[in-house]
Amino acid sequence: MEITSLQNQKVKYWVSLKKKKVRDQEKVFIVEGDHLLQEAQKKQVLQETISVNDSQADYLVTKEIMQKISSQQSISENIGICKFLEEKPINGNVLVLDNLQDPGNLGTIIRSAVAFNFTTIILSNDSVDMYNEKVIRASEGMIFHCNILRRDLKTFLPKLKKDGYLVIGTDVITGKNIHEYANLKKALVIGNEGQGISGDIKALCDNFVNITMEKTCESLNAGIAASILMCEVYHE
Amino acid sequence: MEITSLQNQKVKYWVSLKKKKVRDQEKVFIVEGDHLLQEAQKKQVLQETISVNDSQADYLVTKEIMQKISSQQSISENIGICKFLEEKPINGNVLVLDNLQDPGNLGTIIRSAVAFNFTTIILSNDSVDMYNEKVIRASEGMIFHCNILRRDLKTFLPKLKKDGYLVIGTDVITGKNIHEYANLKKALVIGNEGQGISGDIKALCDNFVNITMEKTCESLNAGIAASILMCEVYHE
Repeated sequence: MEITSLQNQKVKYWVSLKKKKVRDQEKVFIVEGDHLLQEAQKKQVLQETISVNDSQADYLVTKEIMQKISSQQSISENIGICKFLEEKPINGNVLVLDNLQDPGNLGTIIRSAVAFNFTTIILSNDSVDMYNEKVIRASEGMIFHCNILRRDLKTFLPKLKKDGYLVIGTDVITGKNIHEYANLKKALVIGNEGQGISGDIKALCDNFVNITMEKTCESLNAGIAASILMCEVYHE
Repeated sequence: MEITSLQNQKVKYWVSLKKKKVRDQEKVFIVEGDHLLQEAQKKQVLQETISVNDSQADYLVTKEIMQKISSQQSISENIGICKFLEEKPINGNVLVLDNLQDPGNLGTIIRSAVAFNFTTIILSNDSVDMYNEKVIRASEGMIFHCNILRRDLKTFLPKLKKDGYLVIGTDVITGKNIHEYANLKKALVIGNEGQGISGDIKALCDNFVNITMEKTCESLNAGIAASILMCEVYHE
């Protein structure tokens, strides 16, 4: 089907999907570019495709329309509307993100989590949305290979503990080397970029780890810290 | 001195410092926020200060003017103009960045380099500018604690080799574990976010390393890879 008017209802709907609220209502999100479209197809979550030049796409649109829908500077030629990813049961090591705000950080953390076999990420309710277009882009398609759940950490961390998880936070001062907890089922908690782990959540942690470093540097970027710790656990 | 007109020559000059070309001509850059101003002062590179409310600043300006100079969404109250940082002699482990493009990546890499005692970073001529405001912000002040040189890598890597450095690139397929090169003076080369290390530069590398990971994930974010490798070298 061809669409040429910016006033078309479908176009307005697609543009509205830039908002988290609308995505949550509709339970769909946008992916841009061939690589992500392929990943979405493999995962069987691709609902419809929109293109500026591919007549096989469900909707053929003008460049002006694509510009409206796309979130990228150099607009994509192909865009897909995908169903929200299904939650899967939790097993193996888990990464918990407490109020993580930067979409680039979340995207690279998802990529590292897949690399280091942390198969589930638990996002606190106040963290950045996993379907934010910058998260998806920075994840380089890895969002389709990660089980990401959004939860109230205050009620969810106690459940993880009951399931045998050791809940491990980070603390620059009191933290130990993560190898002290080798071969235990871990829920690794990473905090907000500026404030770290919030007081309530810190109180729910069983233990704390840190990464030894030069004193000149007070702390690492949250995505870097998460990735280094996951890498260390993967190689333990 | 109080400035209230957007047409003031000083204001136009400060705004022009958002451009790399002008910064390179004038050999100054902008820092925003109290933390960075303090770091600049400690390093004795602070040339002049601009504020919306601090009468001790060299220039007191209106919010409209500050908005023009500031690169941040919520404008800073205090801004400083700093002299370019002086180059220092190279010693210890060195990080080499070949055509790194993302300013956020460079900023977090600088932070990690300071954390893991890679005291010098060599930026290829085509990499993002170290004085880009996003780099400075993401470095969390660590830009003042790192010796960053911009060089033509094709002529500079051979010099490093002559000085006894082992030039180590990354290669997902042929790379070995970095611990194979423990206790050698290293120049660790990290490539462009999309393309990796360019052919010319790869040819100048003595050895290659990689980070073992799940096959589902083809590669890590460049900043993450650099940080994990520097962390491993730091702890060897």
